[in-house]
Amino acid sequence: MKMIGVIGAGSCNEEIYEAARKVGAGIAKTGGTLVCGGLGGVMEGACRGAQEAGGQTVGVLPGTEKAHSNPFVTIPIVTDLGHARNVLIVRTADVLVAVAGGYGTLSEISIALKLGKPVIGLHTWPDMEGIDYVKTPDEVLKAIEGYFTNLTAS
Amino acid sequence: MKMIGVIGAGSCNEEIYEAARKVGAGIAKTGGTLVCGGLGGVMEGACRGAQEAGGQTVGVLPGTEKAHSNPFVTIPIVTDLGHARNVLIVRTADVLVAVAGGYGTLSEISIALKLGKPVIGLHTWPDMEGIDYVKTPDEVLKAIEGYFTNLTAS
Amino acid sequence: MKMIGVIGAGSCNEEIYEAARKVGAGIAKTGGTLVCGGLGGVMEGACRGAQEAGGQTVGVLPGTEKAHSNPFVTIPIVTDLGHARNVLIVRTADVLVAVAGGYGTLSEISIALKLGKPVIGLHTWPDMEGIDYVKTPDEVLKAIEGYFTNLTAS
Amino acid sequence: MKMIGVIGAGSCNEEIYEAARKVGAGIAKTGGTLVCGGLGGVMEGACRGAQEAGGQTVGVLPGTEKAHSNPFVTIPIVTDLGHARNVLIVRTADVLVAVAGGYGTLSEISIALKLGKPVIGLHTWPDMEGIDYVKTPDEVLKAIEGYFTNLTAS
Repeated sequence: MKMIGVIGAGSCNEEIYEAARKVGAGIAKTGGTLVCGGLGGVMEGACRGAQEAGGQTVGVLPGTEKAHSNPFVTIPIVTDLGHARNVLIVRTADVLVAVAGGYGTLSEISIALKLGKPVIGLHTWPDMEGIDYVKTPDEVLKAIEGYFTNLTAS
Repeated sequence: MKMIGVIGAGSCNEEIYEAARKVGAGIAKTGGTLVCGGLGGVMEGACRGAQEAGGQTVGVLPGTEKAHSNPFVTIPIVTDLGHARNVLIVRTADVLVAVAGGYGTLSEISIALKLGKPVIGLHTWPDMEGIDYVKTPDEVLKAIEGYFTNLTAS
Repeated sequence: MKMIGVIGAGSCNEEIYEAARKVGAGIAKTGGTLVCGGLGGVMEGACRGAQEAGGQTVGVLPGTEKAHSNPFVTIPIVTDLGHARNVLIVRTADVLVAVAGGYGTLSEISIALKLGKPVIGLHTWPDMEGIDYVKTPDEVLKAIEGYFTNLTAS
Repeated sequence: MKMIGVIGAGSCNEEIYEAARKVGAGIAKTGGTLVCGGLGGVMEGACRGAQEAGGQTVGVLPGTEKAHSNPFVTIPIVTDLGHARNVLIVRTADVLVAVAGGYGTLSEISIALKLGKPVIGLHTWPDMEGIDYVKTPDEVLKAIEGYFTNLTAS
């Protein structure tokens, strides 16, 4: 099973939400499972896009209540670990897509780069060595496919 | 999404493995998602039964490698939390089924009872107030269905 | 540094509180550091006894606030991990003393026995293979000293 | 109890090690307890400085073995949480000092800024809004003292 992470802030403007939604739809089309933090903003946009495209979505929740996940999470994982759950998202994903994001997202990018996981960046923290920066949701999808193709080839 | 936990030891005899497999199959038939620790023994038996019956299975893994999950896990969650991941299984499940089990399982039963989660017990730690003891995989299934029926009714 | 764990419920009657206090005082006299969950009841009694005897006390807190520790914790560790922090107490302690306790304590005893850590039991869950049951705080102290003596001898 | 965090990489050159050692000595002189990840490099330098100055040092270890802490940790906390333990260091500290550091340190800085904790930076990740950048260990000490003075005054 391909697990593809989407990381980004719990609140965002409509443009970023729609970008996340397209990213989520693209992930579903690859046949992969989307994994994220399960809350609002970028996480909700991505889950929504994935669910609309028939994919499944895992939300690794920081709190104690399944009910706090966004309505497009199909598999809620309830951790009660607070921000420590960020590390689980990174560990679970084969590849991560950072969409915009604040300090929480930066902590996830940092752990991903520390662990040597591929990170695709869209409108996110700039100038970080190791992030594969792209400009559109379509390019995100190509980068994800490229990653899995290389994996198969190697 | 109904999330149904199966807890039990990472190694077991064939009789217990087959009981876990029947429990897993029953869980898949309820339309629920099975969640467990993702390793061998009871966890593998339950995942195998669920997958064979067309269900999906979440493995909340203690280590760093997705590859260490049993072959019947469809959605691996990689935690690197060691035994602390036991708490996540309990929190994520709406209801738990304990099949046989050693001290790891007892720690999960204890957390479940602490949190007030329903626990169905099959060939497991005896004489614990709060466990709904049953004798066969069929009775496990009835107890799970009873739990969700009561939930809807209340 | 010897680390000695005390596990028990967050509320208890006065008799158990006083027993925990004597256990804490005994731990301080061994020169060891007491580690516990940092909250009330048995944890507070033990921390109080240790602090009164000049010892130091580590409280591994489940929540986000240092201020929620009992007033006798000298070193608060703030985890925000909820019940998952129980595993850290067990891992950190070289030997554990269970004083009375409910399901949270049972989860800690279970993890300790799973990991092969010595557990001394005073008025706690009965009939568990692997617990060294004693009847008084003085006997707890002897058992702790015996453990460290054996360790040095081996 | 004042808890002062030191974050930085597990290996470093001698210049950074000596800077960390001076930072650790300064922390001990404030009467605060140093908390860090308990391993080598910056963590070891800081613990060494603190211990040499008579202070106590908490090492929040990622693995399962107390023996893996550096020799200057006086209170080892064994978590077996891997990188998720980074969040505990941030939560436990009242104020954090980042000394140089790589992606692991950046993840800790990010969580600290997310939580609104004060972060003092010495030779660390540049240009981050919210870090109080200083140039010498003496300035670190002044910044720490300033933080606690403001806290008392407010």
